Amino acid sequence: MLKETLYNYTLHLADNALILAQRNSEWCGHGPVLEQDIAITNISLDLIGQARSLYQYAAELINASSFPTGGGREGATEDTLAYLRDVREYKNCLLVEQPNGDWAQTILRQFFFSVYQYGLYQRLQQSTDATLAAIAEKSLKEVTYHVRWSSEWVIRLGDGTPESHQRLENALEDLWAFTGELFLPAGYELEAVKAGFGVNVSALKAEWEQKVSEIFAEATLPDAATGGREGAWMQTGGKEGVHTEQLGYILAELQYMQRAYPGAEW
Amino acid sequence: MLKETLYNYTLHLADNALILAQRNSEWCGHGPVLEQDIAITNISLDLIGQARSLYQYAAELINASSFPTGGGREGATEDTLAYLRDVREYKNCLLVEQPNGDWAQTILRQFFFSVYQYGLYQRLQQSTDATLAAIAEKSLKEVTYHVRWSSEWVIRLGDGTPESHQRLENALEDLWAFTGELFLPAGYELEAVKAGFGVNVSALKAEWEQKVSEIFAEATLPDAATGGREGAWMQTGGKEGVHTEQLGYILAELQYMQRAYPGAEW
Repeated sequence: MLKETLYNYTLHLADNALILAQRNSEWCGHGPVLEQDIAITNISLDLIGQARSLYQYAAELINASSFPTGGGREGATEDTLAYLRDVREYKNCLLVEQPNGDWAQTILRQFFFSVYQYGLYQRLQQSTDATLAAIAEKSLKEVTYHVRWSSEWVIRLGDGTPESHQRLENALEDLWAFTGELFLPAGYELEAVKAGFGVNVSALKAEWEQKVSEIFAEATLPDAATGGREGAWMQTGGKEGVHTEQLGYILAELQYMQRAYPGAEW
Repeated sequence: MLKETLYNYTLHLADNALILAQRNSEWCGHGPVLEQDIAITNISLDLIGQARSLYQYAAELINASSFPTGGGREGATEDTLAYLRDVREYKNCLLVEQPNGDWAQTILRQFFFSVYQYGLYQRLQQSTDATLAAIAEKSLKEVTYHVRWSSEWVIRLGDGTPESHQRLENALEDLWAFTGELFLPAGYELEAVKAGFGVNVSALKAEWEQKVSEIFAEATLPDAATGGREGAWMQTGGKEGVHTEQLGYILAELQYMQRAYPGAEW
């Protein structure tokens, strides 16, 4: 039971990283300027690196003799977990699967997620699970950079031209409803906290809102959390496998090669 | 050799219909008004019907004892031909795989293709191959409607507001380079003409240009073929399997279910 919780919790962390990486990678070759094309692609690579470590750990857990058998999951590897699970088995937040839209939308999605991930990984370093703690510690340097980079872009766009400001406000309108889920624990997150290896995401919210408020003030944007958005409807479900229509299309592209040529090797 | 030509020629006709149907179907639930959402989805269904008849015939050809064996194509069905061929084996024109863009782009793509298909099927009714002739005859009623429907929309948008006019001009800019391929015969088309069952597509061009000119005049658009576009660079390759990046994404979505659940039945 506890093993199952750890497995689900690890997959959730991995899926967040993989799906956001896949989204960002759609920019590869299409960025607004070469330097930023490379920056967003590098962020994808960082996130894929995190996802790999986490999937490897999830595969290790599931292949251990002590793991409850069944469900056809024996023999799992990082690749089978990424390429052969169907949409309902993915546990990522809805935020990371939202479309790239324009540059402002991509930036704001990254900013919201990176600020969340920063708080999460900071605490995950103290996890009673040594592997998760080590992955969090290793990843935190990258995430620190993701927060800085996306913050700078939020300020540049918000405090830029009327058009860039408007685009960021549009992105806020589109994405805000997907931020609530970050701080609403799924069943396996609650169990993971009880067991000592998981992070209480509800406790990250105040700090996340404060950071968002600070950057939004610099960006001359209305305060996201208080500017008429108190009590706004929040979408949920992703962490439990109930996704927006977006994820099916993402997996169709992500998994095509493996589905078309099963077990292919380079 | 002749069988192979007939097979390739039939697949080419089928792929054109299937890929345009798949593109149009992306509008399902997203059309500008309900009536037109249903119209474009119905056009998709017409095209899928044509594709099915043609794939069934191609499968019949390939499974006949007289067909040269090899290439792993034995046991083909309409489904394996649609779902299990890879991007380089698809023989559709580049025009039909171009993105939907906005409504003007979708309309102009349909108009260019339907006017072409109308001329093609009219002549294909006289094919020495009885099956192709019958499919052409049956499909022509549908295509006649597609031409009328898309013509009316070209006129409505072109002779509409400054914005709708501009959007149609933008669509023309994007799509014109993909119209040349329609009238440049691939190897199997030349052989099919020689053998008597194929249509000489070069001979359709003048008639196509005239119809386009007429509708463009009503739509207050510059003449597409002569308005500074004489000798414009034309993209080619699709009929021989060399596609734009678009087709890979289309097939990833189109084939996902079959690739993920091989041989699944409803």
